[in-house]
Amino acid sequence: MLPIAVAEFNTRGYDATSMEDLARAAGITKSSFYNHVSGKEGLLRAGLERALDRLFAILEERQAQEGAALDRLRYIIEQQVRVLMDELPYVTLLLRVRGNTDVERWAVARRRAFDATIASLVAEAVDNGEMSSDTDPWLSARLLSGTVNSLIEWYRPGRSGTEQLPKRIVAMVSDGFVRPA
Amino acid sequence: MLPIAVAEFNTRGYDATSMEDLARAAGITKSSFYNHVSGKEGLLRAGLERALDRLFAILEERQAQEGAALDRLRYIIEQQVRVLMDELPYVTLLLRVRGNTDVERWAVARRRAFDATIASLVAEAVDNGEMSSDTDPWLSARLLSGTVNSLIEWYRPGRSGTEQLPKRIVAMVSDGFVRPA
Repeated sequence: MLPIAVAEFNTRGYDATSMEDLARAAGITKSSFYNHVSGKEGLLRAGLERALDRLFAILEERQAQEGAALDRLRYIIEQQVRVLMDELPYVTLLLRVRGNTDVERWAVARRRAFDATIASLVAEAVDNGEMSSDTDPWLSARLLSGTVNSLIEWYRPGRSGTEQLPKRIVAMVSDGFVRPA
Repeated sequence: MLPIAVAEFNTRGYDATSMEDLARAAGITKSSFYNHVSGKEGLLRAGLERALDRLFAILEERQAQEGAALDRLRYIIEQQVRVLMDELPYVTLLLRVRGNTDVERWAVARRRAFDATIASLVAEAVDNGEMSSDTDPWLSARLLSGTVNSLIEWYRPGRSGTEQLPKRIVAMVSDGFVRPA
């Protein structure tokens, strides 16, 4: 049921999706739909949790915890791209949430906490002299997040050459993507 | 009326905003609201046009038309950031449009045309040897657009230091934003 609901939320927008829409998409009656799920908000929360759990799990991995700050940062970016690719509908849902309800505000706060971890890792890399001292950690973290998250706008599974995408994106944010010859 | 409607669309989502919501936000009755505007879709179109007209106007400027491809590209990126900052609610509306109606599909097509111009400019810079030959113009253009457009998530007018933002972002996409010391 969750994949169907998340697809509907992404197509129609969460607020504009009714329980009738969800039941219709699932191909069952509204009353039998209510036997499966307690309501729209529970489905939203489950969808958001799936994306957030995968993203936060990256931060617990050994390569995200040990080693030079810049290497950890690059590892996290690479894995973040992988999670976006693997969990595209769930991350799409997460990134479109605006904070209109308690569940949405909770998800926005978790997203911000993730981004804050990235920003503090950039700051650590700058402090350690691993990154250029004129780096603004806050701005770098925002642009990183914007670049990586923009994948939801154009990435579609199954295209050829996408296995290299995570590493290529790490290279592009590292070296620039309007790079003079 | 347009700024009020666009703010409502951005807060609630276009589909979830009713004419009653718009009239309430404008502080007038629904019937007198109908005397001012023909409908929700006209307001959506006007809001989207405002953003698109500003973006496409950049491409007509002399610095976007003359000179080396890489310089033109950088000029366009800088001006694109300026338009986002100046027209934040309108560009936000444009970037959240999903293509559920004719007006939305028209806006999505115009956005794609703008991005295609950027991609062909990247390709031209690569062909001319101005940019590294291992650049993938399509991917570079997508990431550029993602980075620049992510401003709508965090840029808020009036913060100090924002005058330098357009030039700083051009520098960051050029040199990388996870740049080793």
